[in-house]
Amino acid sequence: MKLLEERIRRDGVVKAGGVLKVDSFLNHQMDVELFNEMGKEFKRLFADKNINKILTIEASGIGIACIAAQHFGVPVVFAKKAQSINIDGEVYSTKIQSFTHGKVYDVIVSKKYITPEDRILIIDDFLANGCALEGLIDLVRSAGAAVEGIGICIEKGFQPGGELIRQKGVRLESLAIVDDMNAETGEIKFRQQ
Amino acid sequence: MKLLEERIRRDGVVKAGGVLKVDSFLNHQMDVELFNEMGKEFKRLFADKNINKILTIEASGIGIACIAAQHFGVPVVFAKKAQSINIDGEVYSTKIQSFTHGKVYDVIVSKKYITPEDRILIIDDFLANGCALEGLIDLVRSAGAAVEGIGICIEKGFQPGGELIRQKGVRLESLAIVDDMNAETGEIKFRQQ
Repeated sequence: MKLLEERIRRDGVVKAGGVLKVDSFLNHQMDVELFNEMGKEFKRLFADKNINKILTIEASGIGIACIAAQHFGVPVVFAKKAQSINIDGEVYSTKIQSFTHGKVYDVIVSKKYITPEDRILIIDDFLANGCALEGLIDLVRSAGAAVEGIGICIEKGFQPGGELIRQKGVRLESLAIVDDMNAETGEIKFRQQ
Repeated sequence: MKLLEERIRRDGVVKAGGVLKVDSFLNHQMDVELFNEMGKEFKRLFADKNINKILTIEASGIGIACIAAQHFGVPVVFAKKAQSINIDGEVYSTKIQSFTHGKVYDVIVSKKYITPEDRILIIDDFLANGCALEGLIDLVRSAGAAVEGIGICIEKGFQPGGELIRQKGVRLESLAIVDDMNAETGEIKFRQQ
């Protein structure tokens, strides 16, 4: 998606260690006009899928998931990182390894909000190692629901998550795929799509 | 706001200990059509304010903040619950007591995204004891920015947060104020507004 690639080039900051900072428009400050364009694009990409629910994970996936959901006319469910969560009754749970925070945490979703009838689009802001996505796929499948597709804003093509997910046979669409970046020059190379 | 009150009456569940469960449409599963109506109402209520940014706190405030932001044409910033957060440079931070999770946590926002020029609308899904809001007001004022108002989806009028915030002279608009509720009968009494 050209608009997103241009924005990443303009406002993204490449740091050592494969870190791409996009917190000025994507995951701390959020440009909702850009989100709206991304939501439209997700709808275009998944127009052939009969999606009835969007699933994301707290916290930074929630904004884009909600704006995208307006284009699909469906509700959003967000998976919660568990502590003593104020959720009724039974939940599906899975474990996710966070590279950012360097630990494993439990992620849960209420059984009330994913059912075997659901045809789910998973949306998240970033895909790197794919651990969060694997956890979300696991939650959906625990419920007997179908993962119709996965929509990602920015995929780090030089990390293994994208290939891992595509190998599972899940339809994955990333609006921008960064194949290479250079912390010294700030240069970012996007995959042709 | 009638639409929200009706929805709370229909789908909200009153539990013992002053707990109101609205996770079927507000803070686990999210009805983005309802969010859009709430966003419009926030815009109507704060039409006289020259707001240039919306501030919320992860996680359940993010969805309504983003949808509301579309009606204001402004970006959203969400304050993060701190661990080893992947944020550049300096941050404003404050401490917030969580009654739900029974602990105190640090909440931060990057200094880049709140500046003295900002005229901020704070949006959150719930107001009970007001601790989260006090923390967010503290963050805004640390930055020398102005809190133009606070928009809340559901205020628990029988807890002290609303009065506490109004006593500070901050303009607070809650779309629904629950003045009383009964866990045995499920009855919910809303404040006339």
